[in-house]
Amino acid sequence: MVELPDKRTAFVDWYLAVVEEANLSDKRYGVKGMNVWTPYGFRARRNLDRILVREIEATGSEPVEFPTLIPATEFAKEKEHIQGFDAQVFWVTKGGLSELDVPLVLRPTSETAIYPVFALWVRSHRDLPLNVYQIVSTFRYETKTTRPFVRVREIHFFEEHTCQLDDDAATARVRSNLGAFRAIAGALGLPYLALRRPEWDKFAGAHYSIAFDAPVGGARTLQLGSVHHYRDNFAKPYGIVYEAPDGTQRHPHQTTFGLSERLLGAVVAVHGDAKGAVFPSSVAPYEVVIVPIPSPDEDGGTARLARTLAERLEHHGRRAFLDGGDERPGAKYYRWELRGVPLRLEVGRREAAAGAVTAVDRLGRKASLPIADLEDGVAARLADFDRALTERAGAAFRASFLPAATLAELAGSDQVRSLGWCGEEACGHAIEQAIDGALLGTPEDPVPWLPGSPPACIACGSTSPVRWAFAAQPM
Amino acid sequence: MVELPDKRTAFVDWYLAVVEEANLSDKRYGVKGMNVWTPYGFRARRNLDRILVREIEATGSEPVEFPTLIPATEFAKEKEHIQGFDAQVFWVTKGGLSELDVPLVLRPTSETAIYPVFALWVRSHRDLPLNVYQIVSTFRYETKTTRPFVRVREIHFFEEHTCQLDDDAATARVRSNLGAFRAIAGALGLPYLALRRPEWDKFAGAHYSIAFDAPVGGARTLQLGSVHHYRDNFAKPYGIVYEAPDGTQRHPHQTTFGLSERLLGAVVAVHGDAKGAVFPSSVAPYEVVIVPIPSPDEDGGTARLARTLAERLEHHGRRAFLDGGDERPGAKYYRWELRGVPLRLEVGRREAAAGAVTAVDRLGRKASLPIADLEDGVAARLADFDRALTERAGAAFRASFLPAATLAELAGSDQVRSLGWCGEEACGHAIEQAIDGALLGTPEDPVPWLPGSPPACIACGSTSPVRWAFAAQPM
Repeated sequence: MVELPDKRTAFVDWYLAVVEEANLSDKRYGVKGMNVWTPYGFRARRNLDRILVREIEATGSEPVEFPTLIPATEFAKEKEHIQGFDAQVFWVTKGGLSELDVPLVLRPTSETAIYPVFALWVRSHRDLPLNVYQIVSTFRYETKTTRPFVRVREIHFFEEHTCQLDDDAATARVRSNLGAFRAIAGALGLPYLALRRPEWDKFAGAHYSIAFDAPVGGARTLQLGSVHHYRDNFAKPYGIVYEAPDGTQRHPHQTTFGLSERLLGAVVAVHGDAKGAVFPSSVAPYEVVIVPIPSPDEDGGTARLARTLAERLEHHGRRAFLDGGDERPGAKYYRWELRGVPLRLEVGRREAAAGAVTAVDRLGRKASLPIADLEDGVAARLADFDRALTERAGAAFRASFLPAATLAELAGSDQVRSLGWCGEEACGHAIEQAIDGALLGTPEDPVPWLPGSPPACIACGSTSPVRWAFAAQPM
Repeated sequence: MVELPDKRTAFVDWYLAVVEEANLSDKRYGVKGMNVWTPYGFRARRNLDRILVREIEATGSEPVEFPTLIPATEFAKEKEHIQGFDAQVFWVTKGGLSELDVPLVLRPTSETAIYPVFALWVRSHRDLPLNVYQIVSTFRYETKTTRPFVRVREIHFFEEHTCQLDDDAATARVRSNLGAFRAIAGALGLPYLALRRPEWDKFAGAHYSIAFDAPVGGARTLQLGSVHHYRDNFAKPYGIVYEAPDGTQRHPHQTTFGLSERLLGAVVAVHGDAKGAVFPSSVAPYEVVIVPIPSPDEDGGTARLARTLAERLEHHGRRAFLDGGDERPGAKYYRWELRGVPLRLEVGRREAAAGAVTAVDRLGRKASLPIADLEDGVAARLADFDRALTERAGAAFRASFLPAATLAELAGSDQVRSLGWCGEEACGHAIEQAIDGALLGTPEDPVPWLPGSPPACIACGSTSPVRWAFAAQPM
């Protein structure tokens, strides 16, 4: 038995212990910040990927894959972008036994890999919109402390890149991405804020950036992903041009949408509890674990029944795991709670004889399920579990914010703070200094639980213009 | 309209033209041999990956993912392996603005990434067998001419790595892999030979290697994948040790199983014809393309019907594409034949009024399908198409071999040659010189259409020992 640190008072230690003890990632690889996806962690990841693929393809995006390596010459074409990434990329300088003529960058993100090819693919307004996405490894030479799923040097990255007719069409694509993210976060039971980042915190090369932030306890937030409107900032240096219906040559406006394995980190951080990880059924490596409880005086009937039930559920499309090992049932319960499986079925002799099994969900709620229609019973319990988990996360979300009226209140804050901000950079930096963190930005859409009119700017007292903004300590 | 080169007389030109014109891969990326997976090519690839995952997981293998970068120190631990790969890896020497203390290798294959971690995962005989696989990008600094899917510098690679109790258990795992490959090749309609490679051509570090070869016209063959038995050649230098039931410490015996995007290259090379690519339905990006044939005097009814049929098929799990564009139907037929879609449905007004559509498969066979049970009709036509395609490939396979009795016959051979070989390396090299290619090796299982007893060694005339072997020109 492992003693987990306390989530409230020692959040980071708790997070690291859960990832390790639930066997989601092995960080004992020989390169710092490059971790091994264990079978259990990988299964969660591929379930997540399925959700991303489903939601992005529902909006008309097509799958592609561009190479991992980017010629230094292409990498350097957009000035702000290269300045933003120069110090954090890995460089390939040798091929075989000889120096390369042109060094290659391991993509930190793929604008500079994709856009030279977009320049070949886009010719006419009939080629637009061009919406493609890929799910690939990206690489950052991270110098800060690394953490599994949250800050790593090899990132499991989802990135959509699009070309649109004009500014309006690109804005519409941004809105479409916000809708896709709503569906993705919904499937994970993760509440979040969609915030337009301040100018000084936008993506390198973007016109503006919207990021999704989830509170993960105290004043801490985790950025779950982001959507960027590039206007023609990249289209110009990369020579992406189309012929408009009127015969003129124009640059498309571009957008991107980025997500990563951080979503799994957020699932652990938001839903996890004192017993370990808690997975919503959508991403759970196994939705159901089946534990036979053999009696000393029986002939293996419960083990056989457990196997039959596992096969029935799998046949029905459920991810079921039969834990038929020699350990005591209690040890198995403990392990699968630690690992966050949504539903446990206990197959005991007496109850089985009466045609039922006991179902216990990861929130500890018990029910007896008739074996005759086990498939329906399991589906209903999982749906109910997902609902309850989402509600629990929603309640924690709403409790994590506190309005602040003065900079002094921000110091040592144990909550994410909502406040008024005039939009001036100097005031923004004053806020960041006061909370020892970041001004996350302003809500992209009205936040229902905030009063409609924001208070005066917390830094300068200006009342016009002023907007609601959030300040926190990003993880 | 594109004129494709002749497949028989200009095979390589034909292959390159088909890959390009079918829009499966874009090779205009800025690094030689690193190509872009277009949406169409990517869809074929993910269908292939689904088959690989299904077949390997059916044999009890678990998904993992190890990092892309390998520390030079780990990479160098197995002597033969490093010698085999030293000259063909990409080196990362810089992170951000500074030189790395330990250079990193972009994995050319993952033995040296995975086995240090296996040394942590394997403790006891109860941890065995350990069967894991990953599907990842691997990298080779290829100096030969590159070709899409067949010889590239960034490879879409499937690799299984296992630890087994002993030599026998590892041999059994090799047999299991051969069975999995039989299922995979079966799903692709690809006939092949499973050949044990000669000593001088085995994988760097292996005890022995079995490779799968498919004839692709003339004396050319394409290696589709391979299975290796490592004994404890890697377990020793990487310190992988388990405690046996009797308390002794032992090294497991290891195996690997490797496949790649070459399987897609083989699908193009083997099944393709004068009209372009031909995909078996298992990997076809789209199984069905639906082409409405509007009449000038109607109100859009055929377009609406075509859309309804596409939705019905998709709802039924079919990958269907509705080509509703403005072009003439003939131009659409031509394009989707070039792109290799198995089945085309033509939705015309008169036939639709009679409750039917015309189905034309990629082998040119027509049928009228009742709309009422279109799902069943499409399933039956696709199954029949797959059968016919597999038969066509099988007939070409059987016709591609010719026995040879003298070295002189090998020169300028236009077929793959079967011959007797005594097993001596000197004779092997003489054979390779004569055919200006490779001695592929000896059949792992009896080949039904070869006489049971092989002729004398084609090089030295020895009759004992002597085995059947194959010689060809690998692509």
